Amino acid sequence: MRPSFPLTIGLALITAATPIAAQSSDSVALAQLSLMPMPASIHIDSGGRLALTPSFRVAVPRFRDGRLLRAAARAITRLARHTGLGLTHEVTRDSVLGTLVIDVRGPGETVQSVDEDESYTLDVTTFRAVLRAPTVVGALRGLETFQQLVTATGSGFTVPLAHIADRPRFAWRGLLIDVSRHFEPVDVIERNLDAMAAVKLNVLHWHLSDDQGFRVESKRYPKLQELGSNGEYYTQAQVREVVAFARDRGIRVVPEFDMPGHSISWFVGYPSLASSPGPYALPTDFNFTAGAFDPTRESVYRFITRFVGEMAPLFPDHYWHIGGDEVDARAWDSNTAIHRFMRRHKLKDSGALQAYFNRRLSRILTAQHKRVVGWDEILHPDLPHDIVIQSWRGQASLFSAAQDGYSGILSAGYYLDAMSSAGQHYAVDPIPTGSDLDSAHAIHVLGGEACMWGELVTPETIDSRIWPRTAAIAERLWSPSTVVNVNDMYRRLATVNVELADIGVHHLSGPDAMWRLIAQTDQIAALRALQHVVEPVSLGQRMHTRRPTLLTPLVEPGDIVTPDARGGRALSALLDTLFHDPSRAPGLRDSLAAMFAQWQALAPTIAALTARAPLLTDADSAAGALATAGGIGADALTYLGGGQPASSAWTSDRLAQLDSLTAPRGLLKLAIIPQLRRLVLAAGGAASATGQ
Amino acid sequence: MRPSFPLTIGLALITAATPIAAQSSDSVALAQLSLMPMPASIHIDSGGRLALTPSFRVAVPRFRDGRLLRAAARAITRLARHTGLGLTHEVTRDSVLGTLVIDVRGPGETVQSVDEDESYTLDVTTFRAVLRAPTVVGALRGLETFQQLVTATGSGFTVPLAHIADRPRFAWRGLLIDVSRHFEPVDVIERNLDAMAAVKLNVLHWHLSDDQGFRVESKRYPKLQELGSNGEYYTQAQVREVVAFARDRGIRVVPEFDMPGHSISWFVGYPSLASSPGPYALPTDFNFTAGAFDPTRESVYRFITRFVGEMAPLFPDHYWHIGGDEVDARAWDSNTAIHRFMRRHKLKDSGALQAYFNRRLSRILTAQHKRVVGWDEILHPDLPHDIVIQSWRGQASLFSAAQDGYSGILSAGYYLDAMSSAGQHYAVDPIPTGSDLDSAHAIHVLGGEACMWGELVTPETIDSRIWPRTAAIAERLWSPSTVVNVNDMYRRLATVNVELADIGVHHLSGPDAMWRLIAQTDQIAALRALQHVVEPVSLGQRMHTRRPTLLTPLVEPGDIVTPDARGGRALSALLDTLFHDPSRAPGLRDSLAAMFAQWQALAPTIAALTARAPLLTDADSAAGALATAGGIGADALTYLGGGQPASSAWTSDRLAQLDSLTAPRGLLKLAIIPQLRRLVLAAGGAASATGQ
Repeated sequence: MRPSFPLTIGLALITAATPIAAQSSDSVALAQLSLMPMPASIHIDSGGRLALTPSFRVAVPRFRDGRLLRAAARAITRLARHTGLGLTHEVTRDSVLGTLVIDVRGPGETVQSVDEDESYTLDVTTFRAVLRAPTVVGALRGLETFQQLVTATGSGFTVPLAHIADRPRFAWRGLLIDVSRHFEPVDVIERNLDAMAAVKLNVLHWHLSDDQGFRVESKRYPKLQELGSNGEYYTQAQVREVVAFARDRGIRVVPEFDMPGHSISWFVGYPSLASSPGPYALPTDFNFTAGAFDPTRESVYRFITRFVGEMAPLFPDHYWHIGGDEVDARAWDSNTAIHRFMRRHKLKDSGALQAYFNRRLSRILTAQHKRVVGWDEILHPDLPHDIVIQSWRGQASLFSAAQDGYSGILSAGYYLDAMSSAGQHYAVDPIPTGSDLDSAHAIHVLGGEACMWGELVTPETIDSRIWPRTAAIAERLWSPSTVVNVNDMYRRLATVNVELADIGVHHLSGPDAMWRLIAQTDQIAALRALQHVVEPVSLGQRMHTRRPTLLTPLVEPGDIVTPDARGGRALSALLDTLFHDPSRAPGLRDSLAAMFAQWQALAPTIAALTARAPLLTDADSAAGALATAGGIGADALTYLGGGQPASSAWTSDRLAQLDSLTAPRGLLKLAIIPQLRRLVLAAGGAASATGQ
Repeated sequence: MRPSFPLTIGLALITAATPIAAQSSDSVALAQLSLMPMPASIHIDSGGRLALTPSFRVAVPRFRDGRLLRAAARAITRLARHTGLGLTHEVTRDSVLGTLVIDVRGPGETVQSVDEDESYTLDVTTFRAVLRAPTVVGALRGLETFQQLVTATGSGFTVPLAHIADRPRFAWRGLLIDVSRHFEPVDVIERNLDAMAAVKLNVLHWHLSDDQGFRVESKRYPKLQELGSNGEYYTQAQVREVVAFARDRGIRVVPEFDMPGHSISWFVGYPSLASSPGPYALPTDFNFTAGAFDPTRESVYRFITRFVGEMAPLFPDHYWHIGGDEVDARAWDSNTAIHRFMRRHKLKDSGALQAYFNRRLSRILTAQHKRVVGWDEILHPDLPHDIVIQSWRGQASLFSAAQDGYSGILSAGYYLDAMSSAGQHYAVDPIPTGSDLDSAHAIHVLGGEACMWGELVTPETIDSRIWPRTAAIAERLWSPSTVVNVNDMYRRLATVNVELADIGVHHLSGPDAMWRLIAQTDQIAALRALQHVVEPVSLGQRMHTRRPTLLTPLVEPGDIVTPDARGGRALSALLDTLFHDPSRAPGLRDSLAAMFAQWQALAPTIAALTARAPLLTDADSAAGALATAGGIGADALTYLGGGQPASSAWTSDRLAQLDSLTAPRGLLKLAIIPQLRRLVLAAGGAASATGQ
């Protein structure tokens, strides 16, 4: 390190200080930035800026390895694309020449563990930015922050003067991707890894087998992938590629092979593993299936031992996920040999039998130096304390596990297929304020994982189901618990949303492509406009409307639209201003009237499209409902502008109409009904609606 | 074949009949279809339709191989996505069960040659469609036609009753992709191969080496890719993957290793191959470089022999492209040993020396059973007659080669980087009507190739440079020479444009993604609107404006917009109707007024975007020019509506203003100036403008 660096604040600071969100001497400057996740500590100095010019250069003066240099090269490429500058990719060792100096102490762990040091500091002066980190992984995190700091000012791009000291709140910050129900090719996985790195997530939980498909090549047991999939699976070379790609981005890859339930795909090729003789076929639907491994036969454990022995070198991570969820006891109940075994071993019920299976599994994995992770059903007094519990059924099981000394990760509340809003996920904290978990037990809460289950996503739609909402979850897991301002989260999420597209995620281009596909035209402006005020129904509603199977192509409007419809939030903000700033009311009423007129105009346009594109039917139906809503909104505005409140008959009639508009239109629902209720109530003179 | 098939028209028909474009008993039905390329012969019967239902099933009753079954599976997947139907992927052998019966006589050639039989017939009745072909390649072509026939009618999808007998006009229908200047990853190549197959192209000409980069892994000479590229190259496994992917789609892969010029990238690692000692570095610009192989040294031929020996098995095609273009004689002139060699071998000039080199090269390639293709510079009396000449400098060289008995392929007029319109390329015919080439010589014209040179394209932009224009070139090369209606081509191209996006081409999503990148927002409606009336400047203008180098990130508005701006063509059509159908004039004037008002409104919106996104500068400038044009258009409409012609002073003043608006705005030009000239002239009372 060059002693002449003018900065004195080192890594000690973030080790010592309690993380404080967004400490800033200049909150205006901070409000113009869109960092996500918010750093543990940030200080902005508005007294100048570091300009990015064609002479921008990266210096790596001390430790350097391939991983760090590749990350620097990726950052330079992104900065060049972002700024349009023809930047050199040559990285110098001379820190004096560097506009961005990356000063790293060492490589970090050979196999990244849950204890990896991810901290960094970033100091930006008018001359240069200095990123310091004890490990390459910390530098990767800091590089993402640096790129988020770059903003356009006037005719060029600059970085604000800043001191940032950052480290994660939780050590396990994951995303589960289920590739069993619908396969996701390597490029889908890799672009999602890039996006994960951008928001500082560090675990890809790869759900590689389930009833509907087994997705990894086994050379020892080739019928696993050959008969246990539709031909879509990862070769071992591809697995190595993904694991290396993830490591390059400071991301661990934890494989999950779900057992003893959720395992029909194993039994298609190897029925002797199962507790019933079979034969087995891959399900073409998502109904609950009652097949399970036979925990009583030694041949099953020999198979698993050899299988794990083959797979363990492919997945260097210290953890291995055994699944363990939703075992249907009927699979065992109907087998008299299993009954005899249970009596002989004094296993009183199927829970005890599964615990027996998990203990055996745990021994096999321990021999391969793997620690076990499993869904919360595996929690059982007979299991060793080094297993990790992943809570999906609720936060309570996470706390009870922690109180019993088990480490845990939270997924309840982070299910992306539930079609909840970013704000709803953001409100879920692995250790909520006021939790009665004491600090001795709280350390067992390692973090959380967003879960992208695969029943209803394809390579075309998965990105828009994961992003940008997962960025909000990533912030919850990285940033201090005090970072909770939902409006500011949404403000920053809008910027991150665009950055993620630049990184290569298809969450914005995908919906457009799907509209073009099902509308059979590239004139889709009306459908884009509809998309802004429409959301998908919940998972439960979806599963009970035209119940999808594996053959369903998933190309309906409900597969395209996303939670957090922009129009709903925008309308709420307009109403807030309308009711709280009378001076702006006339202008806002005009804007609202224009918006409602646009809603009414969409219906005939979308009806015309639907006449030649039958797959648009739900969109047509939703556009009709939106037109009705627009009419109600327009009438309410007339009352509000006239100064005389609407009659109670009008009000109750319109509220009833709005109630009927809350019903799903096929797989769609309108995202603006509560806002219109507020407007109608205000037109009727209700003070509660205007907050006055 | 099942004897009960009700169809009697067999393959004999297309062998015997002179191809006749679009023979149809129902031109209305045909005008609703969007086949491209147009089949050699098509007969539509509007007396019914074949309905696609969930029970749609593919039957392959006779010959079947992996290639055919994979193609069937892809077609089923696309049909399911297109229709939303949950179709089975199980292919039956029982033709009675098939909705689409694919009846193929045999596999086709083991290594597809330029003589491969690509013909097929397709017969659609109300019960089923029967696709018959002598080879799997013919079946691949017919499958694409079948998919283009599927149209939405009422609440479902149907296929019109049709008899199609089809075969290509030219045997060599190619697309050159230059991956040297900017590397294009495998997924870019593969999605372009999918698109090529959709429009029945059959040759990928892979320009693998040039001054700026050597893009194939050589295990024997690893410094070729290690020092001769920026680290981006295809591994041999990837080459095999691409070649297999192409073969699956009936596409040959012809590699080009350009020599003796355009070859600096070879010399970085192996300077002894060159006529000057070096050292050599990869150029970072596109300036003409004076490096060339030394044709006088035996060690050079030994190197090439071993190199070709290593590469030949990777590229099974019978042809090998040696480049041979633009050799700078200075590379040889400055070397006295080369002068001595030329005197000793009686080689009177550098042309003779290159011919000597090409003869040696030709012998090396012949030993590997390869025939030579080269750019038209290689044509020389000393060369054997089995070489193929690719004409880039003009059609004349193609004809003179044919008259000398050399086979040739046309690329002059098909350069995609010239930024010409689809209509301009469409007008270029390898054997134009009225050509004085007699039929004995015309058979030497094998076909043509669209050329996508790589100086100014990246993986993000290449798709929108290739597509959809290349579909028009594909039709020129496949369809009968009588298919020349430009308006109908554009009508069909609009449909194919959307299909190509569904196939996976990024030509529509890419521009949106780039706008989002450089505008740093996903609110890009104004930029999309601008894109409709703006085109990129020509290649020549581009190269002389802010001269780009290899470091230029190519993220400017000029990298986003495309030829064939939709708004220009739409405006022309509106004016045609305005001037020829007085009854519709008032309504059309209103539409035009709204359009001109929208143009004027774009300027402030785009100016506001540009204030925080400096890379939009050209868009801002073009929007300003467009606003001026909109004002002129609005004034002209006022005159036209008022019944009194504008003064000649007004007219000449506005024409002068329009002239000044034809100047490029950075890398952009307005695509609506000729149309506005017409409107201004009409406002001034000029009969020539209205055609009356």
